Formats: sequence, structure tokens, C-alpha cells
Amino acid sequence: MALLRFILFFLAVSLVTLQVTLAGDADILSDFIPPSNTTMPLDGSFFTYTGLRAITDPNMPPDFKVFKASMAEFPALNGQSVSFAVLMYPPGTVNPPHTHPRASELLFLLAGSLEVGFVNTTNKLFNQTLQEGDIFVFPKGLMHFQYNRDEKTPAVAVSAFGSASAGTVSIPSAVFNTSIYDPVLAASFKTDIVTIKRLKYGLSQ
Amino acid sequence: MALLRFILFFLAVSLVTLQVTLAGDADILSDFIPPSNTTMPLDGSFFTYTGLRAITDPNMPPDFKVFKASMAEFPALNGQSVSFAVLMYPPGTVNPPHTHPRASELLFLLAGSLEVGFVNTTNKLFNQTLQEGDIFVFPKGLMHFQYNRDEKTPAVAVSAFGSASAGTVSIPSAVFNTSIYDPVLAASFKTDIVTIKRLKYGLSQ
Amino acid sequence: MALLRFILFFLAVSLVTLQVTLAGDADILSDFIPPSNTTMPLDGSFFTYTGLRAITDPNMPPDFKVFKASMAEFPALNGQSVSFAVLMYPPGTVNPPHTHPRASELLFLLAGSLEVGFVNTTNKLFNQTLQEGDIFVFPKGLMHFQYNRDEKTPAVAVSAFGSASAGTVSIPSAVFNTSIYDPVLAASFKTDIVTIKRLKYGLSQ
Amino acid sequence: MALLRFILFFLAVSLVTLQVTLAGDADILSDFIPPSNTTMPLDGSFFTYTGLRAITDPNMPPDFKVFKASMAEFPALNGQSVSFAVLMYPPGTVNPPHTHPRASELLFLLAGSLEVGFVNTTNKLFNQTLQEGDIFVFPKGLMHFQYNRDEKTPAVAVSAFGSASAGTVSIPSAVFNTSIYDPVLAASFKTDIVTIKRLKYGLSQ
Amino acid sequence: MALLRFILFFLAVSLVTLQVTLAGDADILSDFIPPSNTTMPLDGSFFTYTGLRAITDPNMPPDFKVFKASMAEFPALNGQSVSFAVLMYPPGTVNPPHTHPRASELLFLLAGSLEVGFVNTTNKLFNQTLQEGDIFVFPKGLMHFQYNRDEKTPAVAVSAFGSASAGTVSIPSAVFNTSIYDPVLAASFKTDIVTIKRLKYGLSQ
Amino acid sequence: MALLRFILFFLAVSLVTLQVTLAGDADILSDFIPPSNTTMPLDGSFFTYTGLRAITDPNMPPDFKVFKASMAEFPALNGQSVSFAVLMYPPGTVNPPHTHPRASELLFLLAGSLEVGFVNTTNKLFNQTLQEGDIFVFPKGLMHFQYNRDEKTPAVAVSAFGSASAGTVSIPSAVFNTSIYDPVLAASFKTDIVTIKRLKYGLSQ
Repeated sequence: MALLRFILFFLAVSLVTLQVTLAGDADILSDFIPPSNTTMPLDGSFFTYTGLRAITDPNMPPDFKVFKASMAEFPALNGQSVSFAVLMYPPGTVNPPHTHPRASELLFLLAGSLEVGFVNTTNKLFNQTLQEGDIFVFPKGLMHFQYNRDEKTPAVAVSAFGSASAGTVSIPSAVFNTSIYDPVLAASFKTDIVTIKRLKYGLSQ
Repeated sequence: MALLRFILFFLAVSLVTLQVTLAGDADILSDFIPPSNTTMPLDGSFFTYTGLRAITDPNMPPDFKVFKASMAEFPALNGQSVSFAVLMYPPGTVNPPHTHPRASELLFLLAGSLEVGFVNTTNKLFNQTLQEGDIFVFPKGLMHFQYNRDEKTPAVAVSAFGSASAGTVSIPSAVFNTSIYDPVLAASFKTDIVTIKRLKYGLSQ
Repeated sequence: MALLRFILFFLAVSLVTLQVTLAGDADILSDFIPPSNTTMPLDGSFFTYTGLRAITDPNMPPDFKVFKASMAEFPALNGQSVSFAVLMYPPGTVNPPHTHPRASELLFLLAGSLEVGFVNTTNKLFNQTLQEGDIFVFPKGLMHFQYNRDEKTPAVAVSAFGSASAGTVSIPSAVFNTSIYDPVLAASFKTDIVTIKRLKYGLSQ
Repeated sequence: MALLRFILFFLAVSLVTLQVTLAGDADILSDFIPPSNTTMPLDGSFFTYTGLRAITDPNMPPDFKVFKASMAEFPALNGQSVSFAVLMYPPGTVNPPHTHPRASELLFLLAGSLEVGFVNTTNKLFNQTLQEGDIFVFPKGLMHFQYNRDEKTPAVAVSAFGSASAGTVSIPSAVFNTSIYDPVLAASFKTDIVTIKRLKYGLSQ
Repeated sequence: MALLRFILFFLAVSLVTLQVTLAGDADILSDFIPPSNTTMPLDGSFFTYTGLRAITDPNMPPDFKVFKASMAEFPALNGQSVSFAVLMYPPGTVNPPHTHPRASELLFLLAGSLEVGFVNTTNKLFNQTLQEGDIFVFPKGLMHFQYNRDEKTPAVAVSAFGSASAGTVSIPSAVFNTSIYDPVLAASFKTDIVTIKRLKYGLSQ
Repeated sequence: MALLRFILFFLAVSLVTLQVTLAGDADILSDFIPPSNTTMPLDGSFFTYTGLRAITDPNMPPDFKVFKASMAEFPALNGQSVSFAVLMYPPGTVNPPHTHPRASELLFLLAGSLEVGFVNTTNKLFNQTLQEGDIFVFPKGLMHFQYNRDEKTPAVAVSAFGSASAGTVSIPSAVFNTSIYDPVLAASFKTDIVTIKRLKYGLSQ
């Protein structure tokens, strides 16, 4: 019984710890933050991530797909203020409008071509057609998208973020797939409830 | 007994951990950043902003309206990492979904009632009904909205931001009023071109 | 067996903890820092604080009074770099000279009038008379005060801080109510021990 | 006309530029910030400061004295987040209570002995007697003082600050030597106007 | 003459301005920092960099080569805290030991294989053999190297940095190709002057 | 017994946790971070460090020696962004080329003379001869060294760092005393394997 109570108590305290330890993307006070799992050796393998080998796969996924290497997948990034994602765009696919709340994105187009764009806080669209080998910067927190207009050639890009945990706010899902009250959306998008319901239905599939 | 002492020790250690937490913005290297316009006197008036006196006006604007006191309107805020906005909601009006790329928002409801909500990066909606005197925090970079559901009583709020220049990405305008190519939007919102054109038309009015 | 399972469990929890540790600055690596108290639901209520409803109370407190909504009172502010305080000044009362070690203060005068001022690091006083609806910025770390000179009308203000935990160094108390050795104070304020003792006595009441 | 347009254009550009300047004791984007005065050679001498040689002078100044090497005196410190001061305390002298708004102070006692202390934001005094070779840290923004109690031996210290421009708020001067309205001070220090006037007079000498 | 003086004055002011604009790699107070060259249009092309198209070139350079896309080459990165470099390793070549003073490096191996390693501040070597598609993080400020041990296959990598201007300290050049006094190096590397002179000669070729 | 082992294991893990949670060199959200060891009183002694009293010792060590007062030796520095080191140079000795990954160094020469220098990221050497009382700044992350050329007089310096945990990368040890593969070093330093082996041997003594 004492042990059980101890466990419950311990759990509670652990959660408290979690509350405060979630801190900054700034400089840390050590070279790196070692693995928590003490059975994991602290050697070169801790600083290596193999989850992006998909990039070498000659087969495209059927839809637009993102492979992330952020702090969640690759703990050694904790405190290092940088992360990667690989983006694969089959012909004609779109990475829908979204924002990253905690970092800029620097996209490097490795194969194919892309239409890209972002909107600044004065509501101006900055867009560009990228060819293989081009890079494009999406400033921190601004809404942006990419589109592989080419109907035959897939596109592949690698994006770097200036944070180990940039986060993503996907606009279509955040707006229309989170049960925000219909009249709020109808008034916001200056449309009728029926249109909102249809958009919600489409995005819930 | 050993266990008891262990628990006490553990508690002590936990408390130490608790006090470590987080912090603020980028320090400047002077008390403040003086006005660039040398004809402006550097006295108490430079640190004063009178553009929010609208809050004392007994007449509501006809539509939802924001009065800002950010670095653009009030240059003395430069380097001080804080700013204000006054928000006025006539009955039944909405502040549409938006994000602030550079700060959290802390809203203080001075009059009336409000439905508020934000969506986190795992697409969960957090909403709440606020009454007069309540405050609510919208975390940095996340999409949020406010709605004065009351059909008779206006609502008034003052919001503080943890940056002198938080910026705003208004979702309806950024998505549908910036000439993003229709097929990108149709694919993103899983709808047809006609619906996109209708939304664009509505928001361009 | 129970112990073994406990250890395994402990290891699992440790992993979570270690992944999120890191520390220090403005940006956190998550949307927000969830409540420590596991009995508290993680919904909209966690992001709401009702302790400032005093502002809607028509009765003034008898003396100058501050109601804070900082990280200590409102844990959801952790990592969001912003906080509020409500300040109530009965006629003729003073908020004595003080500094905030960790943030600028942006004061919004909601009712009444105030004499405000701060002193920069070259010892120059910047003061101003504020009327209802005015805002005034007290730069980070500088000594400042407010005074409701009006002998009949109370004043009410809401102040925003660019930190979730600005802290306050109250000059009269810090200097004269903390048992600093009398000769240090007499030499510092170029006065005699008797005056120091009298000031200490007055402030200890 | 061309000149006029050029000037207007120049003004416009300047304003844009000014908006993005800001400061920041955080990381700079270059190795160092070179001298603005282009007649100054950019060699080792730019990174050298000789204004603290006073420390090698066998003669004490008659009163407590500070020699600073901050960004103002030593421009190469710009962006390097560190600075020095040499403090000289003839027997029985005091460095009056003060705060540094932008940095912690780490004092190294090179000769003599010192009574030192600081007050935290919950109004607790932390004091200590230092002997030659001791170091003591005064946390950022907190009120502190030093006192050479020894009536015969002078004391010499060197202090490091975690900012190139820590700033100093000297409490006695900021409070009593900046024309703050007497009733504000009388109410703040819970004393009478006559005492305030006497303190002001003493500190104005 | 007036125009000439004006231009000179303008240049002088610009230099001063430049000195201060090189501030923090932390958050900026605008969406982005627009081009200073006003003849450059502020549209999508400003946010695009084409200087890394070399990556699509089927011909390897004869020696190890780095193509950078940092703030110096791509001004739109200013304030965005992220940058790229493309690294090309012909068979058997080495990227010599170096450090980046202002960022971590996250290397993504796009083709071939690499031996990589870094040394922490307690002088422990962490090394790893990478295959195509692997990523590896070199923590901020630590000494590291890469080596394409394969005698037949070239290797190509893209590295992301958590700063727009990471900088590089190349150890062999910094130590042996900058006229540091020979006895300093002989004592440091515990060898004789002749060996130092030979190393210097080799690296000066 | 199992419990005992568990407690020991838990303690070990806790220490790891404590080491990493105390990160971030920017603003903390409290006045200071109290001692973890609860048997240590939280009074003035916690803010005092006596480990640099060596500076008052009239006897020089036989070789160049560094005495550090960083967060590791003096826990009260945690979160205060500043630290000290005392450097003692017997006649003719060298502090070999090294970098500090997390801070600038500001050196104050208290006795003797020193040749100092650093190399910027464009490979330019900035050197200077310092005399007693001079200070010199080594910018963050750049390679630097000091040399007491005088064959008779020892030199003593105190260095301040703009971080509580600056870290040191000693170039000779990091390169030649960490088992980096010989051909990597031979190619990097454009020399032969024999020379590399000799250097490694010399530095391993």
C-alpha cells in the first residue's frame, strides 16, 4: 500500500516536473542533453537519425507526405535549435496553407518543381516558381503553402527549421476540423452555414 | 522510515527543479530606444500613448474593431517586449480566426461576455465562455478567435502581447483574399473551384 | 515483480521528463506547458483566470492595492512571456517607487487620473499626468511610481508585463525593512542613524 | 528636384531601417561589431581597453569610486554580453544600495574585506562578509550594496556583468535627487515632508 | 558640392546604421527584413536563392567543396535563424576539423557514405559512419569533421544551421595559417619549431 | 536490498535530470535558483565562492593553470549568465589555442604582461601585447590564446565569461588526443601520418 501511494505520489510529482522543464530553444548550458534512457549508449549513434532514409526510396508515396526529424523523433536535437523535414509531392499535389509557430522554414528543392508562396502580416502574397536546386525561406509564423503543379513529375524537398520543435498549424484542419461553432466560421468567412458544413464534412473525410 | 526520508528528500529535490523555469524576450542594451525624430522632445510624453482613449467612448463601433498600441503606433515600445490592443465587439460579432506570429495574447474582458477558443498544433480546440473580469491566454503562434454570442450586450476587452510587434495573420483574408491560385485552395480545403471562388468573392467585399 | 514494473514505469516516465528538459528563454518548445495537477482537466478552463474580477467590483479597497495575474497565480502563463496586474488607487494614494527586475510595464489607465514617472540610469526623471484611456510604458528594470493626486476620484489601471514573472523590488521595504546595517544606510542616504531608525520604524508598521 | 526626391527617399528608407534595428544582448550575427569610426584601425587595439589601469595605482581615491569598462567606454564589447568594473573602497566607505537593470553582477574581492548583501523580491536580505579572494553573485535586477567596514584597510574589487551594458539605478539618487514630488515620497516612505526635504538636501550636496 | 557632402554624410550614417542592425539572431520585430538595395524588387524572388543549384550538377568538384547559403549570400535569411550549406566530398576527401561559433549543424547525407565525428568539451570523441539518408547533429560550437573514406564514390550532403550566420573556424588554417608566433604553437602542440614551420608551410600552399 | 539499489539508481538518475534541467543562459523566472542540496542553508553563503582564493597565494604553480568559478563549481551562478576564471602563467608559458562554445571572454591582466590573440572567421589574426591593468575581449566562439613571453615575471589574469557555463574546446587535445583517425588528420593538416603520430604521442604525455 505504501508503495502504491508512493507511486501515485511520484506520478503527481513527475507531472509537476514536466510543467516547468519544458523550456527554451535558446542556448543550453552544456554541450548537448544526453539520452534519458540509461540503457542507450551515449555514443555517436545518439546523434544519428535514420528515419529520413525514405528520401532515398525511389517510390513516391501516393499523396503529399511529410517525414519529420524534429526533437520528438530525434531527441539529440533538444537544445540545438535546428530540425529537418523531408517533403514528398506526387504530381499535382499540394501542401495546404499552414504556419509554424516556433520557426522559419528554409526549403531546398531536391527534385522536380514547385509553386511556393507565403502571405505577410499586411496580407501581401509572395510567391515563386522554384526549380531543382533552389531554396526559399518562409519567414517565422507566416502562412505558406507549396504546390507541385507539374502533372507528371514528382517533387522532393528537404526543409530546415530554426527550432528543434517548430510545430505546425494546418489551416484547413485547424479551422474546419475542430468543431469551432458554425456561426463563428460563417461570420469569419462571410459565407453561410451550409457552406461551412460542407467544408467541414469534406475535411473530416 | 527509509522510505519516508526518501520521499522527503525526493520532494526537496523536486522543488528545486521546479524553480528553474523560463523567461522573457531579447534584452536591449539601453534603458529604452529614443525617438528617431529629433524634433520630438524626449520627455514623459514620448512614453505616453493616447490612441486607446476610444475605450472610454460610450459609443460602440458598428462592427468588430481593434485599436492597437504596438511599436508601429507607439514607438517607445521598441525594445520593451510588450504591447496592447483594445477590442470592441458589438452584439453578435466575431473576431475571425487568426494567429500572432511573434507573441502570446493575454485577453482581459472588461465588459460583456465572450466565447473564446484556440487550436493547438495537434488540432485540439480549447474553448471557454468568459465573463466580465476574466482573463484568457492564447499561446504564441496558435490559431484563435473570439465571439460575442450575446445579441444585445456589446463586449470590450484589452489584450496584452509579449512582444512590441506581435503581428497578425488573419486566416480568412490571408487564405481567400490574396490571390492564391484557386486549385491550391480547392485541393487544400477539399472542395471545388466554385466554392473557392464564392469564398474569395465574399471576403473581397 | 511490482518493484520491477515500477522501475520500468519509472524509466518510461524519466524518458518523457528528460526529453522535455532544457531551459531558459522566451520560446518554449511546445504550444504551452500543461497543468501539473492531474486532477485539473486540460481544457479551456486551464487557460482562464478569474482572480481579476475584482476590477468589476464597484467598491474601492481602502488603500492602494495590486491584484496580480502572473505565473504564480495563473500557471498557464508559464512560457508565454506575458502577465497582468490590476492596480486600484483610492484618492490621494501612492504606488511607492519600485522596479521590476524581469520586465517592462505597460500601464493602461481605465478610470481616474494618475501622476506617473520613472528615472532612467542617468538619473533623469520622466513624468507625466495621465487621463482615462492613456497608456504609459515603464522601461525594464527602471525605478517608477504612480500617484493618484486627485483627492476625490479613485483611479483604476491594468498593467501588462513582458514576462510571466516580472518580480517587484519595492524600494521603501527593500531598503528600510530588511535589517540592512544602519551605518550602511546612513552613509548611503547621507543622513544620520536617528533618521534611518525613524524611517525603519515607520516602514515596519 | 532630384535631390529632394532623393532626400525623401532617404528618409523613407531610414524609417524602414530604424524599424528593424532594435538591439539585443543575445547572439550577434557576426564575430564582432567593428568600430563605426572608420579612422580607427580594426586590429588588436580595438579589442583592448586600458582605462582600468587605475587598479594598479597604489593610491586609493578619497571616496568610494567605480571605474567602468562597459560598452560605452569599450565599444568592442557590443554584442559580447560581458563587461567589467573596478570598485575601490577606502576604509569605512559604502557603495550605496542600487540595482543593475540588465545583468547579474559577479564581484571578485582582490584586496581587503567587504560586507555585501542583496534583497530578493520577497524582501529577504542575503548578506555575507567577504575576505580577499572571495567571489559573490548579486542576482539580476535585485537591490544590493557593499560596505568596507574596516576602518584602516582599503578594499578593491573587480566585478563582471553578464551584459555589455548592465546599467545602474542608484537608489538614493534615483529616489531623492530627481525632483520626485515630495508628497509621493513622504507617502511612500511613511514619513513627513520635512524628512523628505532633509534627505533630498543631503543627497543634492 | 552639397550633393557630394550629402552623399558622404549618407554613407557615414549608413555605416553607423549597419553597425546596429547586426543585432540578435533571436526574434525580429517584423515579418522579415527587406532588402537594403532598393533597386531589388520586394517580391518572391527576394526570398529565393539559386546559388545551391550546384547540387544538381552531375560533375563533382576535384576537391572537397562547400557551397553556402547563409545571410551573406542570401540576405532574406537575416532574422530568420536558419541557413544551409551543400557539401561535396570527392572520394577519399576530408572536411577538416572546424567549429561553428554561432550554431549547431544538422547534416543530411544525400549520397555516398561519410565518417563523421565531434569532440565534446570533456575531450571525448563521438563518431559515426553514415549511410545515404542519415542525418547527424554536431552540437553548437564543438569541433567536428567529416571524411569520405570510400575511394570510389563521392558523397554529397546538405547541412542546416540554427543561425543565419553560423560562421566557421577552420582549425588547420586558424592555427597554422595566421602567423601565430612559432613558440606559442610549439609549446601548445608540445612539439618543436621545425615541425610547426613544416605544418605552416604545408597549409600555406 | 532491491529498494536500496533502486534508491541509488534513482539518485543517479535524478542527478542526471538536475544536470540537464538547469539549462538556459537567458533570463530565469525567479530571482535565483536555490541550492539543490537541502542541507545547505539558503543564506549569503550560497552566493559566495571561495575557490579562487588561490589568486592571493604568492606561490605560482609550476605550469600554466586555470582556476574556474563556473556553474559546475559555484551553483549559484545558474541562470545568472556570468562566470569567472583565474589564469596563472609562470614565465614563458602558454595557454594553448582554444575556443569557448558558449561565451565571449573578457580578460583582465592583474600582474605581468601577456601576448594575446584571436583569429576571426575570415582567418585574420588580431593580436596585442597587454600590460598590467589592461583588458582584452575574445569574441564568442573564436579561437584564441595567451602567452607570457617574459622569461622572468609570472602573469596573473582574471577572465569573465558572459555565460555561467562557457565550456572550453582545447584545440591541441581535441584534435590530437581523441583518437581521430590518422588519415583524417594528415589530410586536414596537409602532412604525413608520421607527423600526426608524433604530435599525438607528444600530446598524450
